[in-house]
Amino acid sequence: MPDSTPLPNNITDFAFLQGVKVIDFTQFEAGPTCTEALAWLGAEVVKVENPNRGDPGRRLRPNKPDNDPYYFHILNANKKSMTANLKSEDGLRIVKDLIAKADVMIENFAPGAVERLGLSYDVVKEINPGIIYAQIKGFGEGSPFEKNLSFDMIAQACGGTFSVTGDADGPPTRPGISIGDTGTGMVMAITILGALYKKQQTGEGHRLQVAMQDAILHYMRIPFSTQGLTGKAAERGGSKVPGIINAPMGLYPCAPGGPNDYVYIMTSRANPEHWDRLLKLVGRDDLIGDERYLTPADRVEREPEVDEIIANWTRGLNKIDAMKAIGEAGIPAGAVLDTDELNNDTTFDERGVMQTMVHPVHRPFKMPSWPVRVDGKAARIEASPMLGQHTDDVISDWLGLNEEAIKTLKSDGAVA
Amino acid sequence: MPDSTPLPNNITDFAFLQGVKVIDFTQFEAGPTCTEALAWLGAEVVKVENPNRGDPGRRLRPNKPDNDPYYFHILNANKKSMTANLKSEDGLRIVKDLIAKADVMIENFAPGAVERLGLSYDVVKEINPGIIYAQIKGFGEGSPFEKNLSFDMIAQACGGTFSVTGDADGPPTRPGISIGDTGTGMVMAITILGALYKKQQTGEGHRLQVAMQDAILHYMRIPFSTQGLTGKAAERGGSKVPGIINAPMGLYPCAPGGPNDYVYIMTSRANPEHWDRLLKLVGRDDLIGDERYLTPADRVEREPEVDEIIANWTRGLNKIDAMKAIGEAGIPAGAVLDTDELNNDTTFDERGVMQTMVHPVHRPFKMPSWPVRVDGKAARIEASPMLGQHTDDVISDWLGLNEEAIKTLKSDGAVA
Repeated sequence: MPDSTPLPNNITDFAFLQGVKVIDFTQFEAGPTCTEALAWLGAEVVKVENPNRGDPGRRLRPNKPDNDPYYFHILNANKKSMTANLKSEDGLRIVKDLIAKADVMIENFAPGAVERLGLSYDVVKEINPGIIYAQIKGFGEGSPFEKNLSFDMIAQACGGTFSVTGDADGPPTRPGISIGDTGTGMVMAITILGALYKKQQTGEGHRLQVAMQDAILHYMRIPFSTQGLTGKAAERGGSKVPGIINAPMGLYPCAPGGPNDYVYIMTSRANPEHWDRLLKLVGRDDLIGDERYLTPADRVEREPEVDEIIANWTRGLNKIDAMKAIGEAGIPAGAVLDTDELNNDTTFDERGVMQTMVHPVHRPFKMPSWPVRVDGKAARIEASPMLGQHTDDVISDWLGLNEEAIKTLKSDGAVA
Repeated sequence: MPDSTPLPNNITDFAFLQGVKVIDFTQFEAGPTCTEALAWLGAEVVKVENPNRGDPGRRLRPNKPDNDPYYFHILNANKKSMTANLKSEDGLRIVKDLIAKADVMIENFAPGAVERLGLSYDVVKEINPGIIYAQIKGFGEGSPFEKNLSFDMIAQACGGTFSVTGDADGPPTRPGISIGDTGTGMVMAITILGALYKKQQTGEGHRLQVAMQDAILHYMRIPFSTQGLTGKAAERGGSKVPGIINAPMGLYPCAPGGPNDYVYIMTSRANPEHWDRLLKLVGRDDLIGDERYLTPADRVEREPEVDEIIANWTRGLNKIDAMKAIGEAGIPAGAVLDTDELNNDTTFDERGVMQTMVHPVHRPFKMPSWPVRVDGKAARIEASPMLGQHTDDVISDWLGLNEEAIKTLKSDGAVA
């Protein structure tokens, strides 16, 4: 909810989904990342949490202060939190009353859990036939692993990303980004938004289901196109791209030689002049036209030599200077940046893409906001909610109950 | 567009965005993946391509047959294609007439190119004030690299994913999935859908902009939460997750020892019984309660020993049997699957998540469809368009021009 702090002129509150009510039973990352996107677009997202420890992504420790709240903050900005005891009759009833008012309900409990809570699609659509009921699971219906729990690493292993990541002659490797979680949240957000668009015309509800393993296939489509071409499993190639026969291409070491001091260089097969330009830049004009290195195929054959010609020059520069010089010579290049370097690059702050969450309890925390800007402005980040912070507000706003009635619900243990 | 082939009962045409018109100037992957999602949700997506070689992602070779069309197929299913010569006066005029009828225009040309074509936001909003004008670039406004070209690898290097991928003591590594491209397309699709929702109420247009480097930060949020916690750059840890102090966790080798014969096992710190269960499963009941391995911290200290205890058992099983057995023991586990294994798993076909594109020219091609199912059904895949296949249809449907007028446009070289 917008607060009254004056905004810098690069930040605003997106109001695209103003008035859209989302009742959010999600936890950890795959679900919360979906509803956070909806919140940034202006929807009212209410997390329904158990009164004890809430979303386990909060990493609350009973009787100890929070020591690791950033995982929760980064995935739950701009949302509300209410607590409800779904195992009490009154708690379940109040949640059903809220569901009756919602446009979207979403959950990513373990397989079978939402049904055991008494909130299966069949029950919910009786309460609210126009609801968009969204579910995220690890594996799809009919998969031999349908009933298994999943986490990002499990989903990535089973979805193929490990198989295409790592050195050609080394073991499969985990991509360090949680594409099984956030990647799944994004495709679900897209589908919810499609359903909301239609619902605005017709009032119709739908059941949406995605499995994390299935969602990963969507991000694996380039390897699948390789599979389509070759009829064989797509391979991994370190920082080269198997299937692109070209050199130089890949990571080259830079000064001062730290763990991320590398620059990615990508000469293009479609632009044969890239090689000559690069030779000029690295001071090896003498090799321009040299038959040993003339075509991409020649250079691939002599790849270690070619890489050394380039590395001999990159080692003398820091990665930013290398990236600049190569880019100015008209050849695509990118420095390998780590989170600290990205955090310190104030150009992200200038366009509102990085913002600082100001929280009532924890120290200020700089994090990425929604990366797409609207009319030149980024979505304002607001603090993630304290557990149950909005219980009274939501019950009062959505259901019109008064203080007295809320007090009764609390004393009955229905909400906390 | 729906054709008349009878559909299997697990597949349908989503109609969420029926009537929404998208004029699509995108190429390669970051843009096309965005508009393909909109097409799968039911929008009418018209690719506007140059008459010569079209979207370079088609990989057309002048005077030679297509030998690598799968990259294009996988990113351009369910779209239409028209050709227009944007450098001719009549070609540009006809495209402007189409823009006047569109709900969304999207482009991912090199920086400055759309302005040089005469289709900047200022020009376009004069033609159509209600348009949603979406742009994808490599780097954001104000970045020192604002004018640089970007490709997925460059964006990933500069967006941080390399820095968190690979062995702890090895170089940064490219994740084998194109999160810089498809990941960017997804956040743009979400934002376009948000804007469309609002436009349905108010008719208002907006300019949406995203940089691939910025979009990657969104997928890097778990490393950024680590940065928030520690104040230091997030690290890479092979297939372990730096920051999660626990063992056993990671990849374990399986029979028969092929490049992807591994199973990921993830015991949980929150579930101390996982370790005992695993010992029982691997036939090492004798170690239950052994003080050397009692706590997660003990096991991390003796990680090579712990890993060997587990690997000694996994090496005797194939990865699917290992995953099943570990999963049945109640411990999260996932086999590392490659594209060929995923391609051969017919449970994806059964839920419509994998489908075969039947194309008029190229051989049938199995590919992932949109991963989210609606009311139990997946979105039907239709063939990607031939270059200019729908030129006449679109001009006639959108602008009401007759055959004669279209013939004139063609003879003038405005369209092809």
